[in-house]
Formats: sequence, C-alpha cells, structure tokens
Amino acid sequence: MAFVSPRVCASLRIARTQLRTPCTAKAAPRLGLRSFSATTSWQLRTTEMNEEQLGSLKVDQSRLMGDIHHSCQWGIGQRWGDKPTETGMSRLALSDSDKTVRDWFVQTTESLGCTTTIDSMGNIFAVRPGLRNDKPPTFAGSHLDTQPTGGRYDGILGVTAGIEMLKVLQDNWVETEYPVGVVNWTNEEGARFPMSMSSSGVWAGSIPLESAHNLREVGGGTATMASELARIGYLGQTPASHESIPMGAHFELHIEQGPLLEMANKKVGVVKGVQAYKWYTVTVKGRDCHTGTTDLKSRADALLTASKMILHSHRLATTNNALASTGILTLKPGSTNTVPGEVSFSLDIRAPSDETVARMEQLINTDFPAIAAGEDVLNSNEGMTKGLPCTVEITRDFSSPATLFHEDCISSVTQAAMSVLGPDSKNQIMEMTSGAGHDSVYASKRCPTSMIFVPCREGVSHNPAEFCKEEDCAIGAQVLLQSVLRYDRLRAEA
Amino acid sequence: MAFVSPRVCASLRIARTQLRTPCTAKAAPRLGLRSFSATTSWQLRTTEMNEEQLGSLKVDQSRLMGDIHHSCQWGIGQRWGDKPTETGMSRLALSDSDKTVRDWFVQTTESLGCTTTIDSMGNIFAVRPGLRNDKPPTFAGSHLDTQPTGGRYDGILGVTAGIEMLKVLQDNWVETEYPVGVVNWTNEEGARFPMSMSSSGVWAGSIPLESAHNLREVGGGTATMASELARIGYLGQTPASHESIPMGAHFELHIEQGPLLEMANKKVGVVKGVQAYKWYTVTVKGRDCHTGTTDLKSRADALLTASKMILHSHRLATTNNALASTGILTLKPGSTNTVPGEVSFSLDIRAPSDETVARMEQLINTDFPAIAAGEDVLNSNEGMTKGLPCTVEITRDFSSPATLFHEDCISSVTQAAMSVLGPDSKNQIMEMTSGAGHDSVYASKRCPTSMIFVPCREGVSHNPAEFCKEEDCAIGAQVLLQSVLRYDRLRAEA
Repeated sequence: MAFVSPRVCASLRIARTQLRTPCTAKAAPRLGLRSFSATTSWQLRTTEMNEEQLGSLKVDQSRLMGDIHHSCQWGIGQRWGDKPTETGMSRLALSDSDKTVRDWFVQTTESLGCTTTIDSMGNIFAVRPGLRNDKPPTFAGSHLDTQPTGGRYDGILGVTAGIEMLKVLQDNWVETEYPVGVVNWTNEEGARFPMSMSSSGVWAGSIPLESAHNLREVGGGTATMASELARIGYLGQTPASHESIPMGAHFELHIEQGPLLEMANKKVGVVKGVQAYKWYTVTVKGRDCHTGTTDLKSRADALLTASKMILHSHRLATTNNALASTGILTLKPGSTNTVPGEVSFSLDIRAPSDETVARMEQLINTDFPAIAAGEDVLNSNEGMTKGLPCTVEITRDFSSPATLFHEDCISSVTQAAMSVLGPDSKNQIMEMTSGAGHDSVYASKRCPTSMIFVPCREGVSHNPAEFCKEEDCAIGAQVLLQSVLRYDRLRAEA
Repeated sequence: MAFVSPRVCASLRIARTQLRTPCTAKAAPRLGLRSFSATTSWQLRTTEMNEEQLGSLKVDQSRLMGDIHHSCQWGIGQRWGDKPTETGMSRLALSDSDKTVRDWFVQTTESLGCTTTIDSMGNIFAVRPGLRNDKPPTFAGSHLDTQPTGGRYDGILGVTAGIEMLKVLQDNWVETEYPVGVVNWTNEEGARFPMSMSSSGVWAGSIPLESAHNLREVGGGTATMASELARIGYLGQTPASHESIPMGAHFELHIEQGPLLEMANKKVGVVKGVQAYKWYTVTVKGRDCHTGTTDLKSRADALLTASKMILHSHRLATTNNALASTGILTLKPGSTNTVPGEVSFSLDIRAPSDETVARMEQLINTDFPAIAAGEDVLNSNEGMTKGLPCTVEITRDFSSPATLFHEDCISSVTQAAMSVLGPDSKNQIMEMTSGAGHDSVYASKRCPTSMIFVPCREGVSHNPAEFCKEEDCAIGAQVLLQSVLRYDRLRAEA
C-alpha cells in the first residue's frame, strides 16, 4: 500500500473539490484514520476501498444530533421532558415550519456540493455527482414532515442521516462511481393531506398527480396540496415522476416505530420488505333507543355489535398471524341514556403476505354481517341476550400490497450492518418486515430499495416522547452511509 | 235522579263560574251526555259522581292533538315524514322557544281559571281552586322541554293532557273537592343543563338550588340555568321547594319510551315505580402505538379492553336481570394507524331493585379491573392474544334509587284505566316499572305519586320520529283526568 502524506493530500484535494463543486463545508477532513490504495485520482473511490477503509468512514454522532435538533427548531411540539431537546414535533406538511426546514435542507445539501431538483409534488432531490453520471443516483431518503403530535426521529432521522452521509463523503474526499443523493419526500405522514406517502406515490406513478394535488387539508380548511405547494414556493417545474427523476436505488433509515428491536436487544433491523395492509371503514346501524325503557332483547345496539366485531377481528388476527386494529370509533347520537343507533369504526388489517390480508378480508366480509345479524360467530354471543339485528357496511378505503425489497439492497444493508457492528454483529442484527408504510414502498416499485431500522424507546412513535438514543441514531446513519457506498460499488462492479 | 234542563243549567253555571274565576274558555259545555245526582251546588262535585258520570267526562281528542301540535310550533326539529306535524322537536330548556311555549302555558291555564306560580327554578304551577282550598292541589305534571333531537310526545303529552283536563273540568262544570293543577317542570331532559329532572329535584329538596342554578349549558356556552331563567323572565320569587309549594299528589302521563306495551298489544301501563339506576364514566388507559409496527402481544389496547368491558357488562346484565348500556364512547388519539391509548365510555346500569343495581356495581368494580389487567373473566379473552395490561378508573356520576309509587295513586290509575278501557280492560292494562327517570321520581319523595304510560311506536323516543297514536294520546289523557278526579274523591273520603 502506498501512503500519501495527509497534509499534502488535503490541500490538493481542497483545490480539486473547489473546482468541482462550490463547497462551503467548514469541518476539517478526518484523514488520520485512513490508508489509501493505489488510485488514479486524488479522490477516494468506492470501488477501490477495502473493508477497513469503508469501516474507517465514520459519521460524526454529535454533528448528526446537532442537525436533527437544529432542524427541529421549526415545528416544536409538546414538551415531554426537561431538556431543551425533550419536546415532540408538530411540523405538518407544507406548513410554514415545513417551508423553513425545506429551505434549510436545500441550502445545506447545496453547500455540500449537491444540485437540488424540486418536482411538482415538492419532493426535493439533492444530488452529489459521481465519477460517472450516465446512470441515476443512489438515494438516501425519508421525510421532514411530522404528525401533529409527532416526535423528533420519524422521518427526520433518515433525512439528516442522508445529510450526514454527504458530510462524511465531503470530509473524506470520497468519490462515488455514480451520483448519490438525498431525497425529502413531501407529506409522507398524510397527517395534513390525508393520503400517506402521497408524493412518493405520485413519483412512482401509483397515485395520479391531480388526486394528490387536490387533496384538501384535514380539519375543515380549504388549502389543497397544490395551493400550499405554490404558497410556500415548492411547486417545482419538474414532473413528479420516476421517468423525469429516475433513481438508481433508495435506502431509508428509520426508527422501527415498534418494540421488537428493543425487546430483543438488537441494534439494527435489516428490513426485507413491508407488510401488506388494508384500511376499512365499518359502519354498523341499529336503532337509537332509551337505555332505561328498552329491554336487552328489544335493542339493536350498534355499539354492542361493533364491540363484538372489534373483538372478533382480534381473534381472527390471532388465528391468522395478522394484525387487526381499530383506531377511530364514532357513534350517534352520543348520550348516556340512549343506546347508540349507529357506530362507525376504522379497521386496519396487516400481515406480511397479501394472501393473509386477503384471507382476513374474506373472513371479515363473511363474519361481520353474521355478527350484525345476531349469529353466534366464534362464541361472540356467549352469555348475552340476543337482541334485534343490526346491519353492517364495510368499505375498503386503502390497500397497500406486500412489498419485497431488492436482494442487492438488502445484502448491502446486511454487510454494512455487519461491518459497523463488528464481531458481535450477528447478535445485534435482526431481519424484519416493516409494519408501517414508508416512502420506500413506492420507491421500491421503481428502483432497488431497502430500509434500515434502529430501535426506539419502548416502540413509541407518532408521539411527542418518541425517542432514539444518540448512539443508535449514529449506528443507523453509519449503516446507511455504508449501504449507499457498498451499493455504489456493486453497481460499478455489475 | 233529578234532571235539570241543560240550557237553564248552562246559563246559571256560567254566571256562577264567572264570579268564581275569570273564565275565557270558548268551548260549549258538553252537557248532553250527563245526568246529575242530587247536589247542593250547580257544580258537579267529584264526590257526588257515580262511575257512569265519571266515565261520561270525555277528553276531546282533536282538541288535545290541536294543543300538542300548536305548542310544537315553537322549537320545530327534524322532519321525518311528509305531513305538517311529522317533524321532531328541538326545544331545549330555557331557550327562546321554551320561553314562548311557557308563555302559552301560563296564558292558557290562566284562561281556564288557574292561578299560576313560578318558582326559583322556573317550574310553573297552574292551580284551579277546589271547593276546599285548605289542602294542597292534586297535580298533573310533566315537562315542555325536549331533547335536541327529540319528538312531539315526551313530556309534551303529559302537560297538554293536563291542560285538556282543565278544559274538560271547565266545560263540564266539575268542581273538585280540593284544588287541582298542572305543573310544567323545568329542564327535565337535562339535555341543555346536564342534570336530568333538575328542577323537580330542587323542589323535592334532593338537589341544592345553587347546584342547579350553576349548571352550565353543554356545548361550551357560558349560560347557566340561573342566567337563562333570568333572561327569559322565568326566575320566580317563590322558593322552589315542596315546603313553599306543597303538592297533594302528582300524576304524570307519559309515553312509555319503550316497546313493551306495543309488543304486548296493551293500551295503558299502570306504573308502580321507577327502576333504580346509576351512571358511571369508565376510563381505560393503555398506550398509543402504531398499528403496523406493534404486534398484538406488545399492545396495551384501550379500545380492545373497553370492548371487552362493554360485552361483559351486557353479560352481567343478562345474568342479573338488569340493564347495562353504553351511549357515549370517546378515544384518543383517534387515527386509523394508531392503537388508542385511552378510551372513556359511559355506563348506565338499571334494575327494578336497588339491590340488583348494587350487585351489578360490585361485579363491575371487581371485574373491570381484572379485564384491564388481562385476566380472563367469563371467557373475555377467548381466542385472543394476551397483550399488555391496561388500567381502568370507574367514576360513579349519578345514582337514582328505585322509586315505589303510592298505593292510592296506583289504585286511582288502575280504576281509571279500567273505567276508560271498559269490559276488555284487563287485556289492555299492564303493570309496569318505568325504565326511565321522570319528574315523578322526585315528586314521589314529597307526595303520593303515580304515572300512566301509553304505547309509542316501536318504543322509539328521544328521536324526531317518536310517535304516539292520537287515539292513544286521548286514552292516556282520559285516564289522567279520571285518576286526578278519583284521587280527589279519595282525599275527600279519607
């Protein structure tokens, strides 16, 4: 191996980099740890790195946390602890605070040598050129919008880890074979404009642009996605499409949002896919009646019936190794002494395979009307007075088939996690299926994709107290960085 | 028997009545059907009437229906049919429409020879003098306020039947031994000011005046009962108290508000008492979590737990021959993909005896915490995945002990019903316990009381489509009239 004096090397590289991109990064190159293989360039090329060199590229944990918390000054939410950073987030998509954090994202990535493109859904693609730019970039991506009572990690960790990746590449004069980039997807949460992952969905061609543009904000306001994109200056000229903005691959770092990693004492989840899910609205109609004057057998009690259905969905989920959840329930008329005549509730069915979700749907479509009619389904009536029949209407609102991520991306993540976690990595890595939807679901329809999960405290997410340890944020960012570089190398080798 | 020429008799009576009370009634006396026993007075005295004479005093069905629908011009609610009278009512207590119908009530009863007294809860007592006025009046009473989506019969039938009673007495020159009257109780529904029967409760000394005066309107407004009583001019000077305004007896005609009479094809319910009931708020706390990322065993699902409790309360009610109902249920945070961490629901427990309600309370206080903790209570967990424990808090909001009406009043109603329904009356009368609370519950604490029920269509009440056939309204009014007169006679004989 030939060694070059770090000092000489550094000054030469600065000169070259300044020619290539307008660079304003102030951090000093971290060269002391590296050794160099023979190269025709002053830059460090991914194809020329050995395992040791790859491993020596380290994210800066405190700089990453600095970016996370810096970006969280826009859209501060509910406080849950005493420390300055112990607040949640409330940064709804295309709000003023979302505009400010977007401006910061653009400025920061451009200062790191990226060119940014904003598409017609406000998705921001920041691209750092590679040695060859004849193929699309490998992206790290996630989202900067949050739930109204969200936390500091969901989405934000993935984007800031992408920025940290750019900083590490810049500091260490790494030149990738193909361009790499960071993407901030618009309205992933679907909390303000009620369609999750709406903008990666448009990019993938799965959601028509017009439907997404016309989404009206929840809560009775009149703003639409299109009007708010225009208002905050993020209605880009480039069509939101995988054809206009192709991606070579998409890697997404995310907190798990569930308890499995923490419970198993694992550090990294290698995400092999996203489970299938379907959302329904179930409406049970009975008849309002007076609680004091109507005996049990003369009631068509919509809430009692809905309660049976909720328990039944849980039984079916248990039997079929699926998930069934009800998060919304409303009833009419809503008076202590009136038996409700109408109940509507949401039903969220998930399972790793489409077949299981389809079987659950079939069972629900058969069993719920039977329960409404008063039939005994799996002992649903045990010990109860048989009342009058209700009716039920089941509407499917949303369907997301099971997603299987790309083998090459999964293997890049696995190798990166093994490298980052070292000798004990086998005990610290878990292969997982994502329970939640992510922009990676839509990205995976148009390019090789995978995800990296890190544990979050007690699995709590969509909650101000959502928390990921600094160490775990850094491990995740480190795995993201290596995954992108390994995939870049893989592309060059292919 | 001595017969007097109706013509002569009529003119003489008019003269005498005008001396006694300022009378403006325009209906012609209906004398043709009556025969007279020997009497020292031109008036027809209750103590001198035989069965035939009592039976010949007929309410005027179309006049009664005219009064019902006339009074329902104030506070018209939702339409349910095509005919002009096929709308519901929305006449909240102490609203402008309630003020107008009160004015009509005062004007109408005064025009029928009554003196009206308004007490400090806005209860209006209209009293028609008797031959002897040294004892308190026998009242027919109910309420003119309605639910926000109520009907034309609940409360209104009882008050207008009282007015019809006054008209029949006037038309037929009946002189009662003791005074009789009609009372309109304020805010029986508790729909605007959230305490049912608040004003009969104050009158009975069961509810402190100040608590009732300070009741704030629901829905976030700032009005209180006291401020609204003052605003509409019904904050009377007379203390709302059985001591200031004693009652000799209280009879209340009401629609059943349940299906039993209709189902049994009966015409009149002789109400022997009101069942006991208690109201609770049950709050289940678990933990919010993501529906997609949290497996069933890692959830503390507050809604699943609440559903188990609702079914369990129904099972307990079945076993104990009681009623259990949940009419309100709210949850947090309320998102399709978040398992609710908190659910609050109302629980309304009723049974004819206090002992049964107490036993139900005891079972709920034992079983709900066990269900929350995840224990299997009466197979409540059958077929389900055991999750994490929740907690439960049960607050008792209201308690109304069982009420037993007075034997003398019950027997007056029974005799009246037998007289009105004739030979087949045995098949048309049902002894009942009222499932709902009524002002008669509080009245019965301070004077002999009973109630008369008439069937309503499909037991529907607290609903715009609440309906009672004209014939059944008239039968009920006829029984009310006779009950009051029979009780008046009973008092004189005692």
